[in-house]
Amino acid sequence: METTVEARPATQAAPVPAGPVQEVIASLSAHFGERLAIGRAIREQHANTITWLANEAPDAVVFVESTEEVQLVVRACARHGVPVIAFGTGTSLEGQINAPQGGICVDVSRMNRVLSVHPEDLDCVVEPGVTRKQLNEHLRDAGLFFPIDPGADASLGGMASTRASGTNAVRYGTMKDNVIALTAVLANGEVITTARRARKSAAGYDLTRLFVGAEGTLGIITSLTLRLAGIPEAISGGVCAFPTIRAACDAVILTIQSGLPVARIELLDEVQVRACNAYSKLDLAEQPTLFVEFHGTEASVYEQSERFSEIAAEYGGGGFRWTTRPEERTRLWQARHDAYWACLPLKPGAKALATDVCVPLSRLADCVDETKRDIEEMGMLAPIVGHVGDGNFHTVTLVDMNDPQDVAKAKDFISRMVKRSLAMGGTATGEHGVGQGKRGYMEAEHGGATLDAMRAIKQALDPQNIMNPGKILP
Amino acid sequence: METTVEARPATQAAPVPAGPVQEVIASLSAHFGERLAIGRAIREQHANTITWLANEAPDAVVFVESTEEVQLVVRACARHGVPVIAFGTGTSLEGQINAPQGGICVDVSRMNRVLSVHPEDLDCVVEPGVTRKQLNEHLRDAGLFFPIDPGADASLGGMASTRASGTNAVRYGTMKDNVIALTAVLANGEVITTARRARKSAAGYDLTRLFVGAEGTLGIITSLTLRLAGIPEAISGGVCAFPTIRAACDAVILTIQSGLPVARIELLDEVQVRACNAYSKLDLAEQPTLFVEFHGTEASVYEQSERFSEIAAEYGGGGFRWTTRPEERTRLWQARHDAYWACLPLKPGAKALATDVCVPLSRLADCVDETKRDIEEMGMLAPIVGHVGDGNFHTVTLVDMNDPQDVAKAKDFISRMVKRSLAMGGTATGEHGVGQGKRGYMEAEHGGATLDAMRAIKQALDPQNIMNPGKILP
Repeated sequence: METTVEARPATQAAPVPAGPVQEVIASLSAHFGERLAIGRAIREQHANTITWLANEAPDAVVFVESTEEVQLVVRACARHGVPVIAFGTGTSLEGQINAPQGGICVDVSRMNRVLSVHPEDLDCVVEPGVTRKQLNEHLRDAGLFFPIDPGADASLGGMASTRASGTNAVRYGTMKDNVIALTAVLANGEVITTARRARKSAAGYDLTRLFVGAEGTLGIITSLTLRLAGIPEAISGGVCAFPTIRAACDAVILTIQSGLPVARIELLDEVQVRACNAYSKLDLAEQPTLFVEFHGTEASVYEQSERFSEIAAEYGGGGFRWTTRPEERTRLWQARHDAYWACLPLKPGAKALATDVCVPLSRLADCVDETKRDIEEMGMLAPIVGHVGDGNFHTVTLVDMNDPQDVAKAKDFISRMVKRSLAMGGTATGEHGVGQGKRGYMEAEHGGATLDAMRAIKQALDPQNIMNPGKILP
Repeated sequence: METTVEARPATQAAPVPAGPVQEVIASLSAHFGERLAIGRAIREQHANTITWLANEAPDAVVFVESTEEVQLVVRACARHGVPVIAFGTGTSLEGQINAPQGGICVDVSRMNRVLSVHPEDLDCVVEPGVTRKQLNEHLRDAGLFFPIDPGADASLGGMASTRASGTNAVRYGTMKDNVIALTAVLANGEVITTARRARKSAAGYDLTRLFVGAEGTLGIITSLTLRLAGIPEAISGGVCAFPTIRAACDAVILTIQSGLPVARIELLDEVQVRACNAYSKLDLAEQPTLFVEFHGTEASVYEQSERFSEIAAEYGGGGFRWTTRPEERTRLWQARHDAYWACLPLKPGAKALATDVCVPLSRLADCVDETKRDIEEMGMLAPIVGHVGDGNFHTVTLVDMNDPQDVAKAKDFISRMVKRSLAMGGTATGEHGVGQGKRGYMEAEHGGATLDAMRAIKQALDPQNIMNPGKILP
């Protein structure tokens, strides 16, 4: 196989010199053969940013099949000071898989075995390339499911690395709460296992949580022990339209405060509802709307649905229609999951840029309201969807990428949205992670001393800065 | 005030030279006046280990009242390379507050203000010296509570530092799950705040979780943002006796697996039941017994209780009696909380040494069974109580501290119990932490590479090793 590196696009800043990278590629090619790829198309596909961030392709992509192979790659890169970037499905949203300094992309998608399922313990062990849908297919017959559901059918290694969550987080938590332990290859090539399979432990530093959300900057995850949930005996769900965004948010706050164990509570603004109606052939009232779901026994989901109806009615929520019929629920939630795709026809030819923030629940209505006003005043098209039970919401900004003014406006809008969140005690990202896109806000969010502590940890575990450099830390 | 340091007991290994400590004390005494104590009694009281670990007193105790004062102490200690040990209520169980190298104890018990409560966000901000009971008193009128309840009325800073949990963890999680953010003073005297008040975030390394469970070895916590829960509308609870430990454990497994959202499910073996009967004037059958509690609406706790009855009956659980009457429930749970004290009369003059392990749920019955057999074969007195919904259980070993053979036997027993847990995929401690007592098991639990990663983090944040040295890491 050829081991010559094609020139990377001019957008790539400060690549490492070609010499070391070539040596790494040469040293790996004997072992990996055709599983080491250097074609431009495949390299660029592995730096797909789904945003305006420029594609910064790695110098090579290695398709690993075991922890030992990850070690092999990391050790070769460490010897030559070459960057290593982990890749799962490439669905991250903030440029997490870009290779601004070049280097070797470690594609774990072939590490896709479910290694074990322990129904009695409600956990399983998987390789990092297993996707969430693949895992749930695997688990169905055991009556179990893994509840974390970001929009994409992402890999579980990637979901852990970006601390992903999704529609079920209000009830089941995020990746932070559902990774019991993980195995990772560190920058020095050593393999660590962060915890035992026990449901809790007080034995030392919580390295599990340190690696969850580290976006591959501290090591590469090569297996995960995940907490599972039983498929609920009964599920009820429905939609409820509100006169205003604020009324919908207030209904959410009261729902959470009442301790109603809602499994999902999603806000769609009237723009998003219109888009979903068109895309998914629904006939919802084009108003701010909550999609709600309850999990439990027949009796308890009935009770929960009734209570939610009462709460919704207090805020003018019109006739909450709920159903336990799977086909109706599936249709609604499929529409919710397709929200991103539904946005695209709103502005033909535009790219849909999803961004997210998360604020304390008490500020949710303010933050969404101000964001909507901003959208109107700036003359943008940016539907809002949100996992509002957590105070987390997204805008899907439609941008004509060929119009520099449109791009600049979108950047300005997202920047204003993040600053608004921070000013309200919120965070720059609830679930998409930092990558390259949100690095610029880390100083404002955390302050210098906290960032220095993060840098010290990064430096301690990766003194050469070879693990996914240029991400998270400014 | 006097600034002479009394000689520390001979048990203290490798104290720092008196010179630097004297200089620190001298430099602090001007600011702290009578809030800096050097009397032997007060120093020894601040190294109370509640175990066979020797009392290793600090050289001085400083009663701090603010984050700035903690900074003052840490900076003085850092200048002279003198250890700093944080102290809340002194109820940790593995020697976490001992000062094996001497140094300054930072007593945060006067930092006991509830700084803010946000009912809409279900969170609050507290100083580290606030105790869990104090917080719950404060919250009661708002209809909220903080669910983490270790046996002692511990400080919330200490509970975070040891990653404490308790009887409610099966439903509400541990400190890991209920600290949203914290402020800490690092070894370099800088103050960091680990996160915003949003319910979730994907913005950088999870320093919150890194400090939870770090036992003051990475910094001193000076405030905590805690997640709260609404006081349930209805609570039902009851007790159920089983023919064997295994039957009780099997009922627990099925309860968890069924997704029954039990709030508490506690196992007491027949020895512990006998002790509680005597101490708390109960008339329970002296058999392995589960104490169970459900939280929810009137209808849902009724349904949950009925379902649990059915599960218990499958395993020979005799007539689960449940009640929603507060006074009956309180009497039962008070007895459960007094379990430690109830053990003492079983062996007059003995000390009760509590230790805990945590295994995957599927191994719980095996682990408890083997542990009980060990207790019998070794001729020990060691009642068993456990937060069995998490696979976590405790033995309270009664030891005549004046009988070296009895002490040796107890040490051997606990060592065997920890090794048994590790062999079953469990952890050396589910909720008590490592301190000095469980350091010796960290290599077996984590392996060398993982420990090295922990050491690298410790070294990065505390290069002089002044923050609670001699804890956690072997």
